[in-house]
Amino acid sequence: MEGSSIKGVEKIIVAKSAGFCFGVKRAIKMAFETCRDENSEEIYTLGQIIHNPQVVEQLEERGVTLVDSVQDISCGTLIVRSHGLTRNEKELLRGKDIRVVDATCPFVTKAQEYATYLAKEGYTVIILGDRDHPEVKSIRSFVEDVGDVITDLEEIRNAKKRKKAGIVAQTTQTYENLIRWVSVSLEVFQEVRVFNTICSATTVRQGETVEIAKKADAMIIIGGFNSANTKRLAELASKWNDRVYHIERAEELRDEMMAGIHVIGVSAGASTPDWAISELIEHIKKGWGVDRILVVRGL
Amino acid sequence: MEGSSIKGVEKIIVAKSAGFCFGVKRAIKMAFETCRDENSEEIYTLGQIIHNPQVVEQLEERGVTLVDSVQDISCGTLIVRSHGLTRNEKELLRGKDIRVVDATCPFVTKAQEYATYLAKEGYTVIILGDRDHPEVKSIRSFVEDVGDVITDLEEIRNAKKRKKAGIVAQTTQTYENLIRWVSVSLEVFQEVRVFNTICSATTVRQGETVEIAKKADAMIIIGGFNSANTKRLAELASKWNDRVYHIERAEELRDEMMAGIHVIGVSAGASTPDWAISELIEHIKKGWGVDRILVVRGL
Repeated sequence: MEGSSIKGVEKIIVAKSAGFCFGVKRAIKMAFETCRDENSEEIYTLGQIIHNPQVVEQLEERGVTLVDSVQDISCGTLIVRSHGLTRNEKELLRGKDIRVVDATCPFVTKAQEYATYLAKEGYTVIILGDRDHPEVKSIRSFVEDVGDVITDLEEIRNAKKRKKAGIVAQTTQTYENLIRWVSVSLEVFQEVRVFNTICSATTVRQGETVEIAKKADAMIIIGGFNSANTKRLAELASKWNDRVYHIERAEELRDEMMAGIHVIGVSAGASTPDWAISELIEHIKKGWGVDRILVVRGL
Repeated sequence: MEGSSIKGVEKIIVAKSAGFCFGVKRAIKMAFETCRDENSEEIYTLGQIIHNPQVVEQLEERGVTLVDSVQDISCGTLIVRSHGLTRNEKELLRGKDIRVVDATCPFVTKAQEYATYLAKEGYTVIILGDRDHPEVKSIRSFVEDVGDVITDLEEIRNAKKRKKAGIVAQTTQTYENLIRWVSVSLEVFQEVRVFNTICSATTVRQGETVEIAKKADAMIIIGGFNSANTKRLAELASKWNDRVYHIERAEELRDEMMAGIHVIGVSAGASTPDWAISELIEHIKKGWGVDRILVVRGL
């Protein structure tokens, strides 16, 4: 914070909808409760419980071990993260003496169920999302043995000879992308059946982020670099604001980012804890804020 | 054609897809065959067999009577036009000694069937089309007693408390409108099931009309003023060309429409006969064409 000569931020607008969503809150609550209740046992998460490094660290401090594969564990308790399990992982778990704490987001479960239903009904299943994201992998795993699955826009264009397609979306996708995929699908398939599985918290957060980005001089999106929904907030904000910074921690802010900024907007992904947002605000206040900085929640 | 001083048209590009579609050809064939086979009987059409004044006149000359209601007839033969019948009309006919020649376009029948299926499955049925067009009225009539029906974009926006919607489109609608309606529906309904009932001939004709409109100095769309699909061609072309003229007969062309035009594009709705297009070309040649005018089919 050497460059404290640049002190110009007069107002910080923090998105009301920034931070933990219902599914993430639920997963974290379940994880911390498991740590409290079962401190004698071995506790694992398969992948990061949520895509946020600080939360993962806190759980590690409480003795939770992060494993990459179900095959890495043979006993103890497994906390299933908000993104869900693949069908194969579920089957592998069945044969083991492992207690499962299922913190899969109920909206993700819903998307899995819709996808499974569509595959059984003979639809080509189109999954809109990040192909390698654990949520998409988990949804895909339930349908790929049943019928055709598409996770790519180009594949839709080339799927010329099929009759009906069903679409589900990763819960944190954008409505804009969904419409684009539906639109292309309608050029190829006679019937297109869409289950809008984008969760309402996502839609609200994306909408609010865009509105703030339109008004602010710069926009800070705070959250894990591996968090797809956080990255998407930054992408959306960038359409409306030339100065959008995606950071993981407050300390990443630099003088040049804050130069000439009077009104700063702040939003955060579904996996960003409230304290990370508060820390960011304090950091801006101390480093670049004018004396009587105004912090408002929402526009 | 007094203003023959304006002789500048060098090239006429006629859309390959202009004119009668499969459903219209079929309806006209059935109507003329009925006239030929049953000249002793009374023959009726309920409304215009297709939305083209010249064809309607030709049938009248062969003794076909145009009636507005099933109640206007008690015997003889009724030719059902390409747009189909309403459910009520079908029921009224059942009680009468009338021979029915059903020239409903099979694509319209398909749209009726999809709409009926959706209503029975508990979907709010959304019909994209011209509310007062006989085709939309006929589709609507099969579902309005079964479930909720929406034929207006504003109604979709206000249908806040429903869960699933099914969409069908008037067979001559634009893909652009379909996407717009689906898009709004996805903001309101969790599930949106779309049967793309726009017939492929319509899509091809609209696409070709737009491509010609982009290249030509002016565009003539010929066809009935009451033909919804012809009007839509003129609307689409107007997005790409400032000089679009929708005419019903060649004689409607005026000098001022042709001033400064070197390349003229021609397209026609699904209910415009080939001879009307040929007449138009001859009319332009005689009135405004340069000596060696080039007439091409397609770009």
